[in-house]
Amino acid sequence: MRHFEEQLNELRQRLLEMSGLVESAIYRSVHAVVERDESLAHRVLENESRINQMQIDIDDMAVRLLALEQPVAIDLRLITAAIKINNDLERMGDLAVSIAERALSLIHEPPIHAQIDIPYMASLVETMVRKALDAFVKRDSDLARNVLYSDDAVDNLRNGIYKEMILYMEDNPRSVPQALSLVFIARNLERIADHSTNIAEDVLFLVEGIDVRHHAEVRT
Amino acid sequence: MRHFEEQLNELRQRLLEMSGLVESAIYRSVHAVVERDESLAHRVLENESRINQMQIDIDDMAVRLLALEQPVAIDLRLITAAIKINNDLERMGDLAVSIAERALSLIHEPPIHAQIDIPYMASLVETMVRKALDAFVKRDSDLARNVLYSDDAVDNLRNGIYKEMILYMEDNPRSVPQALSLVFIARNLERIADHSTNIAEDVLFLVEGIDVRHHAEVRT
Repeated sequence: MRHFEEQLNELRQRLLEMSGLVESAIYRSVHAVVERDESLAHRVLENESRINQMQIDIDDMAVRLLALEQPVAIDLRLITAAIKINNDLERMGDLAVSIAERALSLIHEPPIHAQIDIPYMASLVETMVRKALDAFVKRDSDLARNVLYSDDAVDNLRNGIYKEMILYMEDNPRSVPQALSLVFIARNLERIADHSTNIAEDVLFLVEGIDVRHHAEVRT
Repeated sequence: MRHFEEQLNELRQRLLEMSGLVESAIYRSVHAVVERDESLAHRVLENESRINQMQIDIDDMAVRLLALEQPVAIDLRLITAAIKINNDLERMGDLAVSIAERALSLIHEPPIHAQIDIPYMASLVETMVRKALDAFVKRDSDLARNVLYSDDAVDNLRNGIYKEMILYMEDNPRSVPQALSLVFIARNLERIADHSTNIAEDVLFLVEGIDVRHHAEVRT
């Protein structure tokens, strides 16, 4: 059996690889919506099984490390964080798939003419995902806190999009299905941001031993 | 330090207590919607912090057990399953809070007159939650499989509610906000069902060592 430290590095490496796949999935799914690009949406759907398989592999590896190496203290915290982050990444991949599916249904319907902030919201969310993973790899708690601060901005954008889409549906009842799809896309982006926040919280716990879950006061 | 077996029992016991709180939250949030009962919705909001605190306590206990007792084989699987189930239960609690918040906004708007299956969908979902936790406590893989089978029925109900609400919004644009709230409630119920499915999958892995994640063929 290889050296424990080497295995921990491999675990980190695989999580990074998984986050790369998930980031691409998010990017492609959003661009499929904005550019009405069917092939981008299909690529997201095709990559789903790869992300799912990676989740299982990483989970197995982490549990095996727990069982065989019986790590303590910081190594134990790292491995339990890896299990949680892995789980969050897989959910983010699922959410990207939902966005890609919405993109496909939108492409087959007439476009709606409303000024909506989906592209901006998406770029904010993509930045959160990347920062959360960077914070994990570099054990950088400042970067992790930065992710927590962005969460409110994303919630505000989501609320703005909801309000706008409600008005739009009231004025254009024939466009209800399309507007509803955009509402769901905004909701999925917000949930991706929430998972990034989970990861940032895990990083803070890992680096500083501070438990910030459910403590909104830390975020303000 | 107390005997390890005793501590595992306490972990199981606390998870059960947590699931009791979460089940009440789901029940109350749905009845707040159906009966337009403001006080039920407020009770869900009041209990949120208790569920959050329980999640942290259970998580801490599980990680402490991993660190101090360095369990192997089935005990290790039990503790990692407990960490995941705990996480799912907390998310279910959050979803019940979202439903309660939607209930409060619906109560302050004129009711909409549509025949919707929210109460039936809710009762199906509540049964899934209870069965998934029973399956965990009794290590009953048949019961866990039973939960997986119900997931499709819930998805179908959700789709039916979506279609009905889209038609309703097209015909009654003044009622878009209320109909949209009902769409979100159906979506939240479906996500609670998904978390029950996650728990059932963890139970199958725990009891039979079978990994059914992402393998749709096992469910049919």
